[in-house]
Amino acid sequence: MAKPHEGPYPERIEPFDLATILPQLEHPEQLELLGRLSPSRVAETLGHLRPEEQYRILHHLPEAVARAVLNEMPSDDVADLLLALHARQRAQLLDWLPDDYREKVVALMSYPENTAGSLATVGYIAVREYWTADEALGHVRKVGREADVVYYVYVLDALGRLVGVTSLRDVILAAPGTPVRDLMKTNVIQVQADTDQEELTRLVQRYDLMALPVVDSGGRMVGVVTVDDVLDVIEEETTEDVHRMAAVEPVAEPYLEASLVTLFRKRVVWLLVLFVAGAFTSTVLRHFEEFLSKVVALALFIPLLIGTGGNAGSQAASLVTRALAVGEVGTRDVARIIWRESRLGLALGLALGAIGIVRAAILGVESDIALTVGASQVVIVAWASVVGATLPVIGRRLGADPAIFSPPLVTTAVDGVGLIIYFEIARYMLGL
Amino acid sequence: MAKPHEGPYPERIEPFDLATILPQLEHPEQLELLGRLSPSRVAETLGHLRPEEQYRILHHLPEAVARAVLNEMPSDDVADLLLALHARQRAQLLDWLPDDYREKVVALMSYPENTAGSLATVGYIAVREYWTADEALGHVRKVGREADVVYYVYVLDALGRLVGVTSLRDVILAAPGTPVRDLMKTNVIQVQADTDQEELTRLVQRYDLMALPVVDSGGRMVGVVTVDDVLDVIEEETTEDVHRMAAVEPVAEPYLEASLVTLFRKRVVWLLVLFVAGAFTSTVLRHFEEFLSKVVALALFIPLLIGTGGNAGSQAASLVTRALAVGEVGTRDVARIIWRESRLGLALGLALGAIGIVRAAILGVESDIALTVGASQVVIVAWASVVGATLPVIGRRLGADPAIFSPPLVTTAVDGVGLIIYFEIARYMLGL
Repeated sequence: MAKPHEGPYPERIEPFDLATILPQLEHPEQLELLGRLSPSRVAETLGHLRPEEQYRILHHLPEAVARAVLNEMPSDDVADLLLALHARQRAQLLDWLPDDYREKVVALMSYPENTAGSLATVGYIAVREYWTADEALGHVRKVGREADVVYYVYVLDALGRLVGVTSLRDVILAAPGTPVRDLMKTNVIQVQADTDQEELTRLVQRYDLMALPVVDSGGRMVGVVTVDDVLDVIEEETTEDVHRMAAVEPVAEPYLEASLVTLFRKRVVWLLVLFVAGAFTSTVLRHFEEFLSKVVALALFIPLLIGTGGNAGSQAASLVTRALAVGEVGTRDVARIIWRESRLGLALGLALGAIGIVRAAILGVESDIALTVGASQVVIVAWASVVGATLPVIGRRLGADPAIFSPPLVTTAVDGVGLIIYFEIARYMLGL
Repeated sequence: MAKPHEGPYPERIEPFDLATILPQLEHPEQLELLGRLSPSRVAETLGHLRPEEQYRILHHLPEAVARAVLNEMPSDDVADLLLALHARQRAQLLDWLPDDYREKVVALMSYPENTAGSLATVGYIAVREYWTADEALGHVRKVGREADVVYYVYVLDALGRLVGVTSLRDVILAAPGTPVRDLMKTNVIQVQADTDQEELTRLVQRYDLMALPVVDSGGRMVGVVTVDDVLDVIEEETTEDVHRMAAVEPVAEPYLEASLVTLFRKRVVWLLVLFVAGAFTSTVLRHFEEFLSKVVALALFIPLLIGTGGNAGSQAASLVTRALAVGEVGTRDVARIIWRESRLGLALGLALGAIGIVRAAILGVESDIALTVGASQVVIVAWASVVGATLPVIGRRLGADPAIFSPPLVTTAVDGVGLIIYFEIARYMLGL
């Protein structure tokens, strides 16, 4: 054997980089490049491509090579690939897998997307609790080349139930005759196969794990989710949150590859919802139309006042949304949050109200209008801060994703009342 | 030895959970609980607390125990703790470390926050390339108990320069006499100690690493950053981005623990910037004041029209910002982005313009005003989409963090011109 890392030159290129290059090459070039790699290297490279691209490449490789590559791919990748194919293509690839492996892959395919089961690979190492450390190490030596995870060694009983976990380190450091039973930890951090992937990432982050075992409802081992899959899930979930934070339904495809129809649908939904909610501002202004026609100067400050209110509300909402997401606050803290935001909102409002008066004075409006602008700014900012901070907490309590309390939504939610505040203060100050 | 995981009952509780419980206990209870744990378990638990809390606990433990715990802590945690202390406390703790370890920790302390060097631990395993696999495994057995990372084995030359890396798996699977030279990979993915932590997380994500070696400018090994630290960095960076996306300067402290003064400062900065930029809307409206006084009904739709424009611009901005962040698009794609957004913006504008006309009709305004509202909505949404998508690209080219192109900023940027579009179209349609 020897030199596993020192093959011909493409073998030294990182799989991620190969995957970046591959789609830029013509077919014969792709085959020429892949032909210089070991099947396990090709499998790793395919792991960075999307299922359709994986299939296109497998399809063009000589069948013997394609079979070898498929058998080297982690079982979660194989399951994802098969799920993306048409029935006939799927049957062909399934046919290439050895019987026992095929069974496991088919089992993984039954778990819905975004669950722990769909992310799990069966390439873990299992030992029995009555084995010695030496026997366990011998087993690792036998199956380690094929495994996707070797640093944890899982202990299963005769029925395949997960009863403990130990690490390759502990196996190596133990005296050879030590039974695995004495090396294993029995309260294993694990998840059910139908656990949502977001919950799973939280466990890996908290408990500093490199892999998390997945079991079925009977406690039988299904597979393990590795930390690199967790990193991918985090990237995916962050993208969803960033999209939601700007009132876009999450778009799964890369921006330049998503069809215009998809982008249109993901955006128009929220634009329409916000338009309908925002239409309340026209109703409010209609109500004050006569008043406005007497003092047109009031109109000059409408965008500025409600814009600032929206900004203050958005700030409060996103601070609280993030604090909820990482578990710094819970719904039980709602009173403390309101108390903080009332004081903060008032302080921020006073600062902005002061420069609001200056701004109005510069425009040369009458002094009672300038004072109206200043006073309204104080109240609007304070009010928007409290509302912005409270909405995500209420949303969480109702079971909604707090990320939907985006700046656009918060802004829309506070605009109408902001206008009422402005005109009521104006009515009072101007004595109309 | 035996049973490392089966000590007295608190030993079976996860460090993360112990760290959650500890701050809720009184001092004597804390000491009683910690007294039942091994020093390495206490060290792991402290790793989940902040430096001030770590010190408070170390300070109250019997000195011999505290020394042992400190020596079990990963060196990056020790460096962070020491940096947070006053000179006298720091001197005391430094005194508890063995000479050679102290030197390494002091070296780590010299790297600025948020760099790879500040995250690195010196608890890695180093071997020489002329050792055999068997010698390397023997070395792992000798030092593995103390190490923070055992699944990678780093190969250093006589000067401490990183020349290769291999895995514990390859060492175990190799024939005993195989020289390490034949097992190692020489093009090691590595970072300089002053590399920004964001760049570091990108490498770990791309190349599916569990630890990333950090070297100094001479190529000498400084330490390794482990994937659990990378997960913490990602959480921290995501918090920063979420805050920036709502125009808040990133707040490092948990929401309920940050002082009101801190929260005020982090928020008022952006509110003032946006206020000043938004004040342009008053100038625009002042320009059209006479016109507005003749047709007050136009004012009814100001918040709705520019609000929708802001929403459309925010959507485009955040799609492009995220695509830039994950590398799906680059600044070279600016023409394609503008071309996509022109068409999308027009389609979205037509949809919203149509319901804008309906909304105006419901309010019972004259038909030429309703048509003005509809036409303006088309142009404003199209224009805002293009501007929103372009700003992050321009920002990236100028070296700014695209996350600052938040919905509040984009909304403010498009409001003024939105008003000009509205009133110019009105002037044309109403023939004034």
